Amino acid sequence: MAGLCRFLEGAVKLATLKSGGRDGTLVVVDRDLTVAVPASPGARTLQAALDGWARIAPRLEVLYADLMQDELDAVPLKPAALAAPLPRAYQWLDGSAYLSHVERVRRARGADMPLEFLVDPLMYQGGSARFLGPRDPIRIPDPGWGLDFEAEVAVITADVPPGVTADDAGEHIALVLLVNDVSLRLLIPQELAKGFGFLHGKPGPAFSPVAVTPDELGAAWDGRRLHLPLLVHRNGEPFGRPDAGRDMQFDFPALIAHAAKTRPLPAGTVIGSGTVSNHDPEIGFCCIVERRAVETQSGAETLTPYLDHGESIRIEMPDPEGRTIFGAIEQRVEVRRS
Amino acid sequence: MAGLCRFLEGAVKLATLKSGGRDGTLVVVDRDLTVAVPASPGARTLQAALDGWARIAPRLEVLYADLMQDELDAVPLKPAALAAPLPRAYQWLDGSAYLSHVERVRRARGADMPLEFLVDPLMYQGGSARFLGPRDPIRIPDPGWGLDFEAEVAVITADVPPGVTADDAGEHIALVLLVNDVSLRLLIPQELAKGFGFLHGKPGPAFSPVAVTPDELGAAWDGRRLHLPLLVHRNGEPFGRPDAGRDMQFDFPALIAHAAKTRPLPAGTVIGSGTVSNHDPEIGFCCIVERRAVETQSGAETLTPYLDHGESIRIEMPDPEGRTIFGAIEQRVEVRRS
Repeated sequence: MAGLCRFLEGAVKLATLKSGGRDGTLVVVDRDLTVAVPASPGARTLQAALDGWARIAPRLEVLYADLMQDELDAVPLKPAALAAPLPRAYQWLDGSAYLSHVERVRRARGADMPLEFLVDPLMYQGGSARFLGPRDPIRIPDPGWGLDFEAEVAVITADVPPGVTADDAGEHIALVLLVNDVSLRLLIPQELAKGFGFLHGKPGPAFSPVAVTPDELGAAWDGRRLHLPLLVHRNGEPFGRPDAGRDMQFDFPALIAHAAKTRPLPAGTVIGSGTVSNHDPEIGFCCIVERRAVETQSGAETLTPYLDHGESIRIEMPDPEGRTIFGAIEQRVEVRRS
Repeated sequence: MAGLCRFLEGAVKLATLKSGGRDGTLVVVDRDLTVAVPASPGARTLQAALDGWARIAPRLEVLYADLMQDELDAVPLKPAALAAPLPRAYQWLDGSAYLSHVERVRRARGADMPLEFLVDPLMYQGGSARFLGPRDPIRIPDPGWGLDFEAEVAVITADVPPGVTADDAGEHIALVLLVNDVSLRLLIPQELAKGFGFLHGKPGPAFSPVAVTPDELGAAWDGRRLHLPLLVHRNGEPFGRPDAGRDMQFDFPALIAHAAKTRPLPAGTVIGSGTVSNHDPEIGFCCIVERRAVETQSGAETLTPYLDHGESIRIEMPDPEGRTIFGAIEQRVEVRRS
């Protein structure tokens, strides 16, 4: 029980209550995700905290340390009352850092993986105006859209200058969290064929209950990657548990440097790893389409179906002692024809 | 001097001062863009106003009417003190509603225009975390990136429900304004070839000094399109003056409906028309690459160069009586090798 139990300098866990308007109310959460205290003053919302991160973060660390020593009057934390840590963001950029994912998804739609993908990361500008909370249902009107999940790790940055190098980019990482990048597989091929990237195919991601500072992650965070398995369950059954630190071709500083090539990244930019994936298929998958690609290649007669009404998905990352770091993304699918 | 001089119900002109933090300070501006008064209380920023638009807009209309009757203690409006009306937004979606632009740009890179582009609009999810103000310089480190402008009309929406029809979408348009969608032409072909849309090639757009309600536009706005010429000057010389209401294959309600197919569009979503363009090339162009495409086709020996250090671009739309509606986007180019 040593290790993560001690107080780590710079460690904080943050969440956002849905109450308090579109940006919710920022709270500091204890390590076990059982209680919370308001993060105000000066940081009523996570965006406000990120806008002044160098000044605000130390205050949040003090609150976190006090909360962990039972020195604050905290209230119970209810996952269903939580929005995404950033309920809406000014920027969501999603990379494709795990090339086994890229290779399998492209194979599924009959495309090879160009060699330059080994050195030049794929990344798309995603919709960030409405992020789903960790318990929010995924609602779609048409099961024929091919609903899939994508379990990822993401970082939230403070201000990043334009042209930052990968060597310098890591210092701008403020927080780490988990993502379900909801995908509508059967809308994507014709959308990408138009050449302007994703719009209909990515209706909006969901995020884990809490975001944590890199320091909170201890030895699992090496400054560039998060070395822990990401656990995915579909309807309570294990679906995959790839290690997020393994087979990550482009680490987070490299993804940030790529994103900042021609522009600054303002505070509150969320950058996703892309679907976590290991080359070894025995470890399972963080999205359905990868599993379908492997099934297709092995000549399976039926493919794993996409998500339908009433199904559930759970995405979580325990620490080496088995305790949840970010809390679980647990979403139910609601298909309602309009 | 009748016409637009009378008070139109629902008419408002809004701008945002740079002072007051990252979101600036919302002000109501008189019709001639000479004076301004703070829009608070309840709407310290434009995003705050849009978040409660049904409640806030009538208050802004009253302020505008009072300002126009000299009943308020107003301060002079200085264009250089203005940010974009929304200095940062949660969503920026840019359509390609003028097919003569699409056809010419594609021809310039050797691609045909698929027939389905006549019925299915092109639209990309753009970066919205940092919009340039109307007088902010465009800074790039490398003139080899092929700096171009794109003069457009855009709308800012209140909340739009998912799956809205084009017939119902128009009622959610809160404001209209002008955009310069800054483009790095020589980075775009290899970026689009990767299939995930724009990232490096679109470093961030600039917006006109003011945004206006549709009612402020009078007869020039038919509920779907803005029927006025858009004037573009490069280094003081006329570059183009296409009519924004002509040859617009997809009107604004159609663009909104397209954007909302699989998700809601939260208040403060900015939707661009794409580069305004008329089929008649004699009217000139709203971006350099279109002119280059026409020059190439006509066998010109030299092509109009992209923008370089010290050049300026001006984008403006006068009303039928010659008075500026939105104020001018006037930007200078600064190339500084890092």
